[in-house]
Amino acid sequence: MLNIPERIVRQPIVRPTLLIDVDRVKRNIRRMAEKAQRAGITLRPHGKTHQSAEIATWFHPYGIDAITVSSVEMALYFAENGWRDITIAFPTNLREIESIRYLSKTLRLHLLVDDASVMRSLIKAGIADVGVWIKVDSGYQRAGIRWDDTGRIIDLAKVIAESDGFILEGLLTHFGHTYHASSAEEVRAIYQDALHRFSLVRKSMDAAGIGPIKLSIGDSPSCSLIEDFTGVDEIRPGNFVFSDLMQLHIGAAAPDDLALAVACPVVSVYPERNEFLIYGGAVHFSKDSLPEGGQRIYGRLADLDDSGWRGPRMDTAIVSLSQEHGIVSAPHDLIETIAPGDLAIVLPVHACLTADQHGEYRTLDGDIIRRFSLAS
Amino acid sequence: MLNIPERIVRQPIVRPTLLIDVDRVKRNIRRMAEKAQRAGITLRPHGKTHQSAEIATWFHPYGIDAITVSSVEMALYFAENGWRDITIAFPTNLREIESIRYLSKTLRLHLLVDDASVMRSLIKAGIADVGVWIKVDSGYQRAGIRWDDTGRIIDLAKVIAESDGFILEGLLTHFGHTYHASSAEEVRAIYQDALHRFSLVRKSMDAAGIGPIKLSIGDSPSCSLIEDFTGVDEIRPGNFVFSDLMQLHIGAAAPDDLALAVACPVVSVYPERNEFLIYGGAVHFSKDSLPEGGQRIYGRLADLDDSGWRGPRMDTAIVSLSQEHGIVSAPHDLIETIAPGDLAIVLPVHACLTADQHGEYRTLDGDIIRRFSLAS
Repeated sequence: MLNIPERIVRQPIVRPTLLIDVDRVKRNIRRMAEKAQRAGITLRPHGKTHQSAEIATWFHPYGIDAITVSSVEMALYFAENGWRDITIAFPTNLREIESIRYLSKTLRLHLLVDDASVMRSLIKAGIADVGVWIKVDSGYQRAGIRWDDTGRIIDLAKVIAESDGFILEGLLTHFGHTYHASSAEEVRAIYQDALHRFSLVRKSMDAAGIGPIKLSIGDSPSCSLIEDFTGVDEIRPGNFVFSDLMQLHIGAAAPDDLALAVACPVVSVYPERNEFLIYGGAVHFSKDSLPEGGQRIYGRLADLDDSGWRGPRMDTAIVSLSQEHGIVSAPHDLIETIAPGDLAIVLPVHACLTADQHGEYRTLDGDIIRRFSLAS
Repeated sequence: MLNIPERIVRQPIVRPTLLIDVDRVKRNIRRMAEKAQRAGITLRPHGKTHQSAEIATWFHPYGIDAITVSSVEMALYFAENGWRDITIAFPTNLREIESIRYLSKTLRLHLLVDDASVMRSLIKAGIADVGVWIKVDSGYQRAGIRWDDTGRIIDLAKVIAESDGFILEGLLTHFGHTYHASSAEEVRAIYQDALHRFSLVRKSMDAAGIGPIKLSIGDSPSCSLIEDFTGVDEIRPGNFVFSDLMQLHIGAAAPDDLALAVACPVVSVYPERNEFLIYGGAVHFSKDSLPEGGQRIYGRLADLDDSGWRGPRMDTAIVSLSQEHGIVSAPHDLIETIAPGDLAIVLPVHACLTADQHGEYRTLDGDIIRRFSLAS
């Protein structure tokens, strides 16, 4: 049951191997692109999830030629691969100013700033022809000026507006707290709440004579679950291209949306504890987890047949991950069918971090799709 | 205070950069090598932590020419770099049998087996001139035959002993549960308990006419804290070369032993919540954590001056990590000294997984040391 179909065996899988179901990826992309078109908003997909020039081209049929990335390195990678409109959705790192200068001269570059001193440093460095988004913290408490600190938001907006080389684009935020939700209703409530906060910020900015400015949001749960994007100008989801157990847990994806898995060799079977050992550890999955019954789980098995994988099997779980070891817990009747040398198809908790651990994707037809690798 | 000394600035650090203090690494290595010599046991250091051909040579002055690795890929890397005696300390993955065959013909190879069916597959494949360790689970419940299942251990030993091409080396185990300890006393108690279990296994094997066989153990906490290794023939610690906050937490390392850090650009400062944002996330640290006051922490800051770093600063912590974002919590008086563009020196929770996220090390003199990278 855990053995991989013949067409993949023709290119033997010997180590943990990142698989994608291309049909599912393309369907996920089409659905998000068509939704954005219906809503009349811009989809600027985030490349941090796939980090692949080839997968990025799958957005082209929908007229999408602008991308989001999360580092200057990733911007350089997509620039090398022909992208000419890039937002680096991470507060500007002044130590990379020479690469930023190069990008600003090469393409339409958009930066995030949440600190007036950083903005002044960019101006002083003579960077020009760059769009700037003010990064706002809408409640997630990761990065950005707090949404209710309108004084600081307006001060920064004025520094940008009064500069020669920078264009104030608007407010950019990430409703990352939707990742703490455990139902679609919760995600929608967080979304509405955060959006209301932004309507207040905009009102203050209007009153200060700044604008009209745009609003850009980013999280996959909101982007997957919301249909009416009134008040939003741009969405930047990334994870939805692959989706994962986290999205499923949140209620932002269906099982058939899960387009990324890792094929892991089964190395040893321990029927006495209803567990087996896979070659597949933290260096192949990273270590994001989901709560389950007071424990944490790091993935689940999928079944695989000639049409692709189905799952997750909710009666299975990766219960621990060390460097190369993964321990899978499964029902005894499944354990009895498994032997060393089999392949386990594992659906990860967090597709972005899992993909980042690998240098390439293998499709279900055995083709190789390269990706940018931070580690190399 | 967080700015890096002049000699490193000469080679600007622009992105999260893995640093090692070479003097500390060499001192950690010398201490472990001298301890093994005093105890009259073999030190076969684990290469999975540093994964670097250059660092591996730092064991040569102590007459060490045999190494441990955790994957076939890593064995191939060290083989290419001249190592001729390698133990792959991970249960044998039958899907890599052709690489195993190549290694068996090239060098003195030692494999782990915990399943008689795997042993029979190796024999049937015609692999020969290979040492085999029986992997035993001494209570950690990750991999291996349970220590009290002496029937299965003896059956497997007989399959090995009766084969033509394989040499039974002995029993190999990993006291991984020492990682759950929070004091040196606890580690010593776990060690003594596990060692007692092995004395019983050996007695049964002697009675069955098998042996004498060796005992190989692996965890850094035990190897760092134990002085009297009576009953042990070989130790395979890896983490001790760098050590980390986990070893410190366990009581198996002193602050001055911590030889690995990540230099991370400070990107934004949020004085209102006594936090700042670093460019340094899960893709630079992985996500192992330590408990602290009902929360988890992912690293701590160190101070840095011309003599290297000192720390950890126990009043600081990385309180969250997403893909590229790290949030550092620190006292207000420290926050007030920090500005975007500074560098934060972060001591990681788990050195092995952190190092694995990077393609190279930078020494405090600015030299580059390459490492094997699984992602490339």
